Amino acid sequence: MKYYAYEEFKNDTNTLIQRVDKYEAQAIVGIARGGLTLAHCMAEGLGLRDVQTLRTELYDEEVQRDSITLFGTCDFENIQRVLVVDDIADSGKTLGIVMKNLLEKHPKVEFQSATLFYKKTSVYEPHFWLHEATQWIDFFWERDFKK
Amino acid sequence: MKYYAYEEFKNDTNTLIQRVDKYEAQAIVGIARGGLTLAHCMAEGLGLRDVQTLRTELYDEEVQRDSITLFGTCDFENIQRVLVVDDIADSGKTLGIVMKNLLEKHPKVEFQSATLFYKKTSVYEPHFWLHEATQWIDFFWERDFKK
Repeated sequence: MKYYAYEEFKNDTNTLIQRVDKYEAQAIVGIARGGLTLAHCMAEGLGLRDVQTLRTELYDEEVQRDSITLFGTCDFENIQRVLVVDDIADSGKTLGIVMKNLLEKHPKVEFQSATLFYKKTSVYEPHFWLHEATQWIDFFWERDFKK
Repeated sequence: MKYYAYEEFKNDTNTLIQRVDKYEAQAIVGIARGGLTLAHCMAEGLGLRDVQTLRTELYDEEVQRDSITLFGTCDFENIQRVLVVDDIADSGKTLGIVMKNLLEKHPKVEFQSATLFYKKTSVYEPHFWLHEATQWIDFFWERDFKK
């Protein structure tokens, strides 16, 4: 297990900001919860005021295993290019379903995706990713906050 | 001007989590952009999966000065208590309008608000706030990320 501290996140996010800058996104969609802090900090760095979020829930049901439900709607009026961000493409199912859903709902908008980590076994590969995840990542937002 | 570093945010957010815990919120609404990282970290600490966001834009027009427009919609099916979070109640206009709008749209839901900072001249006082803001706060998410 790797503890991913804020200082490391800060450096990585700045690298990711430089990489995605050429895409000239006009809005950012963060996938809750894991992608929220990244979406916020990338939006600040890129100077984008338009940050929206989508939320997914994974249901591990007997009949339909790993069924993912998507919550929330986005609004892309006068927006051509959107960057979708999440912390990690692990199984890749969440990001895959989010991207498919966004493309279906907003056929005139271009979507690209960015994550800090990517696992080679992921069913979806983000357009931009920084590190291959070879162990469990314990993100600072998961470790540092407790009741 | 005060630089508000991650380590200070971490300690403050944990204090805020302890204070709001008694409210037993079932969902968190973060106000973009400033409230997003706080919403994420509080949701992690409180164990809440349901994080939603709203976005405001301030138009400084000649005719109607300081007109605030609200973007996004929330969904509170089976939710009774919601915590609305932002980084700071500065003028208080944003949070005041968000709370008014949420109450109008979701009359059966209870809303309470929480911020890290509160300025005494704010037109709206959050239910929970930690520090009085006596100078400009330069939050780490505003300072640490650049192209």
